[in-house]
Amino acid sequence: MLRDQTLLRIPGPTPVPPSVQRAMSQPMIGHRDQETKDLLKTITPKLKPIFGTEQDILILSASGTAGLEAAVVNAVQPDDDVLVIVTGAFGDRFVKICNEYRISVHRYDVAWGEAVSPDAIASYLSEHPEIKAVFATYCETSTGVLNPIEELARVVRQQTDTLFIVDGVSCVGGVQTKMDEWGIDILVTGSQKAMMLPAGLTFAAVSERAWHVIERNERPSFYLDFKRYRDSLANNSSPFTPALSLLLGLEQTLSMLEEEGLEQVYQRHQTMKEMTRAAFKALNIPLLTADEVSSPTVTAIKPDDFEAEKLRGVLKNEFGLSAAGGQQHLKGQIFRIGHMGYCSPIDVLQTISIIETALHRIGKSIVLGAGTRAAQEVLLKGGN
Amino acid sequence: MLRDQTLLRIPGPTPVPPSVQRAMSQPMIGHRDQETKDLLKTITPKLKPIFGTEQDILILSASGTAGLEAAVVNAVQPDDDVLVIVTGAFGDRFVKICNEYRISVHRYDVAWGEAVSPDAIASYLSEHPEIKAVFATYCETSTGVLNPIEELARVVRQQTDTLFIVDGVSCVGGVQTKMDEWGIDILVTGSQKAMMLPAGLTFAAVSERAWHVIERNERPSFYLDFKRYRDSLANNSSPFTPALSLLLGLEQTLSMLEEEGLEQVYQRHQTMKEMTRAAFKALNIPLLTADEVSSPTVTAIKPDDFEAEKLRGVLKNEFGLSAAGGQQHLKGQIFRIGHMGYCSPIDVLQTISIIETALHRIGKSIVLGAGTRAAQEVLLKGGN
Repeated sequence: MLRDQTLLRIPGPTPVPPSVQRAMSQPMIGHRDQETKDLLKTITPKLKPIFGTEQDILILSASGTAGLEAAVVNAVQPDDDVLVIVTGAFGDRFVKICNEYRISVHRYDVAWGEAVSPDAIASYLSEHPEIKAVFATYCETSTGVLNPIEELARVVRQQTDTLFIVDGVSCVGGVQTKMDEWGIDILVTGSQKAMMLPAGLTFAAVSERAWHVIERNERPSFYLDFKRYRDSLANNSSPFTPALSLLLGLEQTLSMLEEEGLEQVYQRHQTMKEMTRAAFKALNIPLLTADEVSSPTVTAIKPDDFEAEKLRGVLKNEFGLSAAGGQQHLKGQIFRIGHMGYCSPIDVLQTISIIETALHRIGKSIVLGAGTRAAQEVLLKGGN
Repeated sequence: MLRDQTLLRIPGPTPVPPSVQRAMSQPMIGHRDQETKDLLKTITPKLKPIFGTEQDILILSASGTAGLEAAVVNAVQPDDDVLVIVTGAFGDRFVKICNEYRISVHRYDVAWGEAVSPDAIASYLSEHPEIKAVFATYCETSTGVLNPIEELARVVRQQTDTLFIVDGVSCVGGVQTKMDEWGIDILVTGSQKAMMLPAGLTFAAVSERAWHVIERNERPSFYLDFKRYRDSLANNSSPFTPALSLLLGLEQTLSMLEEEGLEQVYQRHQTMKEMTRAAFKALNIPLLTADEVSSPTVTAIKPDDFEAEKLRGVLKNEFGLSAAGGQQHLKGQIFRIGHMGYCSPIDVLQTISIIETALHRIGKSIVLGAGTRAAQEVLLKGGN
């Protein structure tokens, strides 16, 4: 293997663009100096269209899980009942966080690889008017399912005083999101997925409705207290010393997304998804998810005649390509390819052609090039 | 001003060494790949001598305040009384965190600019046997005081079952620290001070005694739960996607500290402090703190015949040098010079010579060069 030539094709962290690495290498600045105020002033408005909101986007220096936990501790009051929709490992994480805080959780499980049905949630909510918040996962990273967040929001909005809280970590920035129009109350994402940065920042946008709940919530929190971030951001500042190198990188990724145009960014992700799915279909290797519920950012493959882990080992050791495995009960059953952030259709062509080579190496009988050709055809048709 | 030539002389964030910036620009790696396990395996043992402990050092991706909050939520049980020693803004932050969690706090205030007396704490503790944890600040960043942590530890150790929890954010890595030998139970620091990195990581080491308390503590926490980090670290892993670019940088800063030798690192900081103090004494400008309690990492100056903020403005706008102002009631009364991390005696010579020039510019009558000369004499004497 050529040293340093490694391909990160897991569903985050993603590769970091060279110009972003250069931006992060700028001389360090003072967190209370004008430079940092200017930086936050530049960043904040550029984040809004990505979330589809007029609200300010709060930036916490922490992993995405801290953003999910912040949503829980800020918006769920001690006696509230909540509904958590679990379509995979990250829905399950919301449950674990709520359990840690001894919150009364209604857990709504969906088979891994399927999306939740908004009608089923509508019924559930009408039978359980005590539910004060609904937690959902936009893209469930562990399965590659994109849940129908717009429809779920419509269902939740039919209830009075029920908040809709969405984990958008593995897709916001790569998939169109209209927080205000759809009616999401808290939307959380992280830096290391479609935002093209290293991990270390988590973002949260909060609706007016959610702020009302947060204002009267007495659950203790300090570092994760959204109010502190909102109040500081009003002065283009942060309550605690932020991860400044990541903010300097963020300024550059936002400028890249703006230059490409968000519509084109979303189309690029859609094309990469269709290329990836077409390739595995052409190779007769089963996909975990149906077309209608598949995420533009990550694809899970569920082989029926070779070992996923054996393929992953060859990909990593012989070709320097990192693919993700399955989580929890899907461990060893699937492998996952990330195609988000700093990733383009030509990277997908390379990824597919490497996987074909590796499949041949592990003795799986395939027509070499058949998957690549299917992906090329999608690309040549303009991703339609 | 020459663009890009800016001098960050605040007490953190500090400048980042070029080799560390290059290390952080390495291609991104997978957080569950062998590369990350290898990285954590390299980092962990090199952190131990900096803390002076045989315990593993937990690394949380967050600001230092999150590390302080983690110490509180992990080690203080709901009905515990705690004593917080407040010698400045960061002791006060410990109080704010405890108040947020409605912990019964005994607040022990010391005049800002002075260190706490261990004898006074010994008396206080003997009168208040209900106190289950004592919180202290090693270097109080807001005043430049280095509190007598070794003696305080001895005093706390005379009590049975009282934990000693130390905020070492603005000095660990620049000042000798012997956690195990002295008897500290939880020691927290951050990445953006003597550790020469951007902000975004916080470190915590936990004694066996503290683990016993943590194990039976039922206070909810998820992202800040030390147990999750300890259990993952046992497998060279982390419970949540860590800020990998900062970990790649940390590997390099640890290697730099090891190469220089910790004894020499501590001596360098001592020399920088003595140079800075000698300079202001030679200029007849009052220092906030007495020699005996002054920190090797930051010096606070309390001018009596010119405005601190006016000097800071000229330093920043004409010379590109960021110095820190005062916090809370010392706002406008003092300015603070950081001399820690990626900073050496020759940087101090430059800083002093710039400050002299700026003092002249704002109309303060001084003998130009007198402060620089005093600093040079300290340096030539080998810092003794």
